[in-house]
Amino acid sequence: MNMNSHAFAGNPIKSRTPKPREPVSPQSALKTLRTLLSTNSQIISDDDFFKILPFRKGKPLTGSTTIGLKWHLGWLSLSDCKSYLEKSQVVLTDDSLVYLGSQNENGVDFVYWGIDVSDASGLVDELGARQFCFVELRTLMVATDWSDSKAMSQLAIAGHGRALVEWHNTARFCGYCGSKTVPIEAGRRKQCSNDLCNKRIYPRVDPVVIMLVIDKENDRALLGRQSRFVPRMWSCLAGFIEPGESLEEAVRRETWEETGIEVGEVVYHSSQPWPGFYPFLSLSLSSSSFNY
Amino acid sequence: MNMNSHAFAGNPIKSRTPKPREPVSPQSALKTLRTLLSTNSQIISDDDFFKILPFRKGKPLTGSTTIGLKWHLGWLSLSDCKSYLEKSQVVLTDDSLVYLGSQNENGVDFVYWGIDVSDASGLVDELGARQFCFVELRTLMVATDWSDSKAMSQLAIAGHGRALVEWHNTARFCGYCGSKTVPIEAGRRKQCSNDLCNKRIYPRVDPVVIMLVIDKENDRALLGRQSRFVPRMWSCLAGFIEPGESLEEAVRRETWEETGIEVGEVVYHSSQPWPGFYPFLSLSLSSSSFNY
Repeated sequence: MNMNSHAFAGNPIKSRTPKPREPVSPQSALKTLRTLLSTNSQIISDDDFFKILPFRKGKPLTGSTTIGLKWHLGWLSLSDCKSYLEKSQVVLTDDSLVYLGSQNENGVDFVYWGIDVSDASGLVDELGARQFCFVELRTLMVATDWSDSKAMSQLAIAGHGRALVEWHNTARFCGYCGSKTVPIEAGRRKQCSNDLCNKRIYPRVDPVVIMLVIDKENDRALLGRQSRFVPRMWSCLAGFIEPGESLEEAVRRETWEETGIEVGEVVYHSSQPWPGFYPFLSLSLSSSSFNY
Repeated sequence: MNMNSHAFAGNPIKSRTPKPREPVSPQSALKTLRTLLSTNSQIISDDDFFKILPFRKGKPLTGSTTIGLKWHLGWLSLSDCKSYLEKSQVVLTDDSLVYLGSQNENGVDFVYWGIDVSDASGLVDELGARQFCFVELRTLMVATDWSDSKAMSQLAIAGHGRALVEWHNTARFCGYCGSKTVPIEAGRRKQCSNDLCNKRIYPRVDPVVIMLVIDKENDRALLGRQSRFVPRMWSCLAGFIEPGESLEEAVRRETWEETGIEVGEVVYHSSQPWPGFYPFLSLSLSSSSFNY
């Protein structure tokens, strides 16, 4: 199966889960990044190794080329990023930095970061003057040529970044004791700051099933429509997996709840990460044999 | 595929996601349950319609028959439950009650509830005298004859109950604003009590991949072992799905992280709910073509 066949899948950046004892760990990269961004130190040698993608309210920074109307992600160098932040008087908090992974290109390790600049309204004008703007992921998805694997990779990186950056907003406090959480592992995990609790908090990924229910004769599909849909718009049934359910059971329950129809065999098709406000994982299934 | 082939799958109780306008909604069942449990009212007519399963620190109440050493879940009637709670001076909070679903048997609707009695140490003796005790789910799993579909159903109900009951402990506070959360929809959802936030909180289901990686010749399997394992114990590789990953990508990343081996084709096998401290959903995949 081609991983690039689904939008938001096929992220080319290797994002190994951080291990504390790695020679160049994400933690040490974070330390370097924060030092260089926050102090008056001159950025010289490290500039080229950092690629920083700003997000504003879940939207990644995006530029476009006039030729062919193609978009590209607005990766900033460390010095450009620093100068933008200083001009718009933005001070990044610990929650705003997220390690996206690293990639070796021609023997050089590039380190990729997402930063959350939602509060930096001054930045919009600043970047707008440079033909950059913050664009909704769905818009980028529609604007992408799905046969262009390079563009699909960019979409996947943006989706991964959005999911991690947005998760920091929904995990500011520990669900168990209510204390503040602090980012650890370069923003890929969080931890409760209360020493008596100290719970580790992992990015939330909510599994969802989306299914095409078809009849035994394989000539009719079961679709649904919501009241908010425009006329003639129909969609596949879908829903969250509940605790205690297999995904095949979730397909059966959701179809039964929404339509009263009992589903027969359930066949897995593929899965796709979906970077909504919560980072969903959606699992496509096709399903045969309803009688109606 | 037979849903009962996996432990903790195949819950026979229909747990339709509560709809507020249903004639007999879980909310109205909750109101009845709370009224009958908390006041001095005599329980007469409704007693038989409620089946209540107590959980203590994630362990369901369990009894066993002397014949064949079979176990069964410790379902209590409303009046029994009330009398136990009164004897051990337990007052249930809103967070302690979870609607597990309803089932129509011979024209009568039975309503199933899970209750969390973790703080009620007095209850252990009380119930012990009646040959009931609280048993870890893994122990029940091992003690179950996997070809006995009725016993497997009981295991699935216990797993579903545990996942929901335990989730209330980890979702006491809103991750977004830090305020207290309150249960809604009969304990199947929670909501932030801060009117300015009001976020809805859904039970957390963490998708996990567990995979049997095999070589191209189909004659060797890739297994791992942790330092805490007993000698000669090996296990399949497994890991959490990260935001922005399809499950096929999670299989590849985890295998690469743990062993440095690149995985070829990934084939989905089946899925299983796993009621750990977090309610996992694990997805089994088999995978071929590593070269080593």
